[in-house]
Amino acid sequence: MFIRLHHVGLLVKDLNETKKLYCEQFGLKPGREFDLVKEDVRILNIPIGDSMIEVNQVINHDSGVGRYLAKHGDGLHHICLESDDLDADIKMMGALGFTLIKPVSESPNGVRVAWIHPKQVQGVLMELWENPKDQPDTSRT
Amino acid sequence: MFIRLHHVGLLVKDLNETKKLYCEQFGLKPGREFDLVKEDVRILNIPIGDSMIEVNQVINHDSGVGRYLAKHGDGLHHICLESDDLDADIKMMGALGFTLIKPVSESPNGVRVAWIHPKQVQGVLMELWENPKDQPDTSRT
Repeated sequence: MFIRLHHVGLLVKDLNETKKLYCEQFGLKPGREFDLVKEDVRILNIPIGDSMIEVNQVINHDSGVGRYLAKHGDGLHHICLESDDLDADIKMMGALGFTLIKPVSESPNGVRVAWIHPKQVQGVLMELWENPKDQPDTSRT
Repeated sequence: MFIRLHHVGLLVKDLNETKKLYCEQFGLKPGREFDLVKEDVRILNIPIGDSMIEVNQVINHDSGVGRYLAKHGDGLHHICLESDDLDADIKMMGALGFTLIKPVSESPNGVRVAWIHPKQVQGVLMELWENPKDQPDTSRT
């Protein structure tokens, strides 16, 4: 079951400019900031309410996200729905004909994510997120 | 102060297809559905966590949103940040050089909204939202 709009993802050239905009100027508090090398981005999470703005700065321009940024410029990139049982939701979606872009990935801190292509879900790149059971969501801190 | 990611806005050709996707297939509960004629859209709100997915179906194709849809197709359109004091936030942003696309509008139920052009905020069309004081957020029901 999908229980939260975990975050909306932005793709940008310069994360520090976006941090200045949302945090210094608009007054939101920055959360975790880190490189996610295998996804070719540096990430800044900006919590707001029980959701977040996830800022993705391209760090490898010879990549899928690099080409997307070159074509579209800074802007909205994806939404992420949090599931309370990712395997069950993927099974349910598989029965309806939805497929994942690649197998579910698990980060060292136990977060599991999957991706659905915009062509399958009316033009919106969609991430599905499962937090490790009984753990705080460390992406917010 | 911005206190919540009030919603992420999608722009689509066929709201019923999007309702089928998120509600019938993904199991989210539909909220309020209504025409917003002055904005040229029919809206379906889909609450998730303390945020929402706001589905906007173009009902006047000879309009700004109609032309945007014709160019880009179904997909992400805007984000909406909820303010606990819209006048104060607009004043703060004005002092920083931000301007609104048009004057603040107020709906019959007391919700006040403002819009900032993507050129001012790194490529993201941004809505600012203020709920009437001490009232429930009727957009969710």
